[in-house]
Amino acid sequence: MADRPKRVEIHEEGPREGFQIEPGPISTAAKVEFIEALAETGLREVQSASFVDPRRVPGWADADEVARAIRRRPDVRYTCIWLNQRGLERAVATPLDIVGSIQLSASETFSLRNTNRDTSQTLAEQRKTLDFCKARGIAVTDAIVMTAFGCNYEGFISSERVRECVGVLLDLAAEYELQLSCVRLADTMGWANPTTVERIVGTVRERWPDLRLGLHLHDTRGTGMANALAGLQMGIDYFDSSCAGLGGCPFAGHQSAAGNICTEDLVYMCEEMGIETGIDLERLIECARMAERIVGHPLPGKLMHAGSLQPYRARNDS
Amino acid sequence: MADRPKRVEIHEEGPREGFQIEPGPISTAAKVEFIEALAETGLREVQSASFVDPRRVPGWADADEVARAIRRRPDVRYTCIWLNQRGLERAVATPLDIVGSIQLSASETFSLRNTNRDTSQTLAEQRKTLDFCKARGIAVTDAIVMTAFGCNYEGFISSERVRECVGVLLDLAAEYELQLSCVRLADTMGWANPTTVERIVGTVRERWPDLRLGLHLHDTRGTGMANALAGLQMGIDYFDSSCAGLGGCPFAGHQSAAGNICTEDLVYMCEEMGIETGIDLERLIECARMAERIVGHPLPGKLMHAGSLQPYRARNDS
Repeated sequence: MADRPKRVEIHEEGPREGFQIEPGPISTAAKVEFIEALAETGLREVQSASFVDPRRVPGWADADEVARAIRRRPDVRYTCIWLNQRGLERAVATPLDIVGSIQLSASETFSLRNTNRDTSQTLAEQRKTLDFCKARGIAVTDAIVMTAFGCNYEGFISSERVRECVGVLLDLAAEYELQLSCVRLADTMGWANPTTVERIVGTVRERWPDLRLGLHLHDTRGTGMANALAGLQMGIDYFDSSCAGLGGCPFAGHQSAAGNICTEDLVYMCEEMGIETGIDLERLIECARMAERIVGHPLPGKLMHAGSLQPYRARNDS
Repeated sequence: MADRPKRVEIHEEGPREGFQIEPGPISTAAKVEFIEALAETGLREVQSASFVDPRRVPGWADADEVARAIRRRPDVRYTCIWLNQRGLERAVATPLDIVGSIQLSASETFSLRNTNRDTSQTLAEQRKTLDFCKARGIAVTDAIVMTAFGCNYEGFISSERVRECVGVLLDLAAEYELQLSCVRLADTMGWANPTTVERIVGTVRERWPDLRLGLHLHDTRGTGMANALAGLQMGIDYFDSSCAGLGGCPFAGHQSAAGNICTEDLVYMCEEMGIETGIDLERLIECARMAERIVGHPLPGKLMHAGSLQPYRARNDS
């Protein structure tokens, strides 16, 4: 318990996660309005677009337009994702903050099925991207271990395998002299539980005590917030999450739409526990309600429906 | 962490919680089918009806019919609730398991607004009920502190106040020579967070180290499962919960329908953490899906939509 951080950093992924799965259509203007509102909450990073094949992800066919329309705040990073060099070329042509990442899947089977590459082929591909980033002066500060807690193809992932993956990424970072801000462990398929969070974070922490670790958690099986708590108790101070739980869907049958943990629910929990987030919770709740209006159906976040405890506090103080 | 229990007991409240708020109509046969299916999962206690004024809670106007129609398993307790002596008279006329309880609200303002009685008036009323139970040979084994973590009228509740309430209930139990199975702390209004769970459970535990404590948690603000984890870490081995998250509703605007934590999500988390529940998770998931079919709209449970990890384990084992 002594490990709990005083402050956590939250990386907002709602716009990118959410709009890529919504049947839509959602207007470019609505996306921009939502991103701009998120940037007013105190969030320091908002993942704002996805540069992927518009035939595969029609929801982000307007990524370039969104990227150009955002009125930027100087203290916020507006990041984005891409899956290949073509996407990266599109991204760098926009005013977005291009942050490169190195990634490895702890499950090699997932890697093979998802990208048709094994670990060594993935590393070769990462080197190509790193060479490109180096040539273009693009900072690479993120490292991610995907399927770190389990995989629908391989089952549970051992902590030793995750430690091995982190080691490979750190070696690659050293080879390219990258200054990584954080290594994120991603529960890509929603397999984590509080015990595996403790075990895997503990194993990696033991090997690299000074390495900053982050968690990317999904609430696939209802344990997302409990996993976040387990992470906080292990000293994790960096989380990915999604406003309103965008990317998830409460409707039965949407099994693929598991959703990140919900940003405002996470901020609420942290703040109530005395852990600072630097985020204006009431403004963030308004963003979540805006998200629900934009997508036109209920979203999984809880706090936006119940409201925070702020009104009661204000009444008690008066 | 050493405090985690090896086994937890889960008290199912889904039928009673859920059917009282559903706009319905839901047939008596469907309610009975659901209760009977729950009783096949390994749950040892299913709250199966609510004997309250049918003008106020039309969803339970058929409580008597449901109670009589259930084909009972000998190893399951089919419990129920009532709010006054008239309700209790109806309940004892059915074959249900009548378990009396003593209850106190940590928030006196809530008590006054909810029942128009302060603490001493509540105690006088409890004595009347206890006299009635004694005369009728009804066992009183439950004790509940309501609004133990906060109240929309009074704000946060101090751990000292909760300890005081537990003391009053224990004195009452001693006066009537009751054998309490457990004292439950109820987060009636969804104010709890992991830190307050630790603080309040810790304060009560310190005073009565051997008293069995239970938690009745709501997922009003998204922290329900994290609160349950905090409880497990404090050694709590008794939880109330609701299959499929019945009683809650994912639709915006249903602010009053906060919902207990979801039974199968809790069972999943416990079992994945190596904590036994004695419950067949796959059967329980089928019950949750049945509940969704019965009410005709999505329910908040996550696991029933994603499925458990059992199919992957089975594949890996083969």
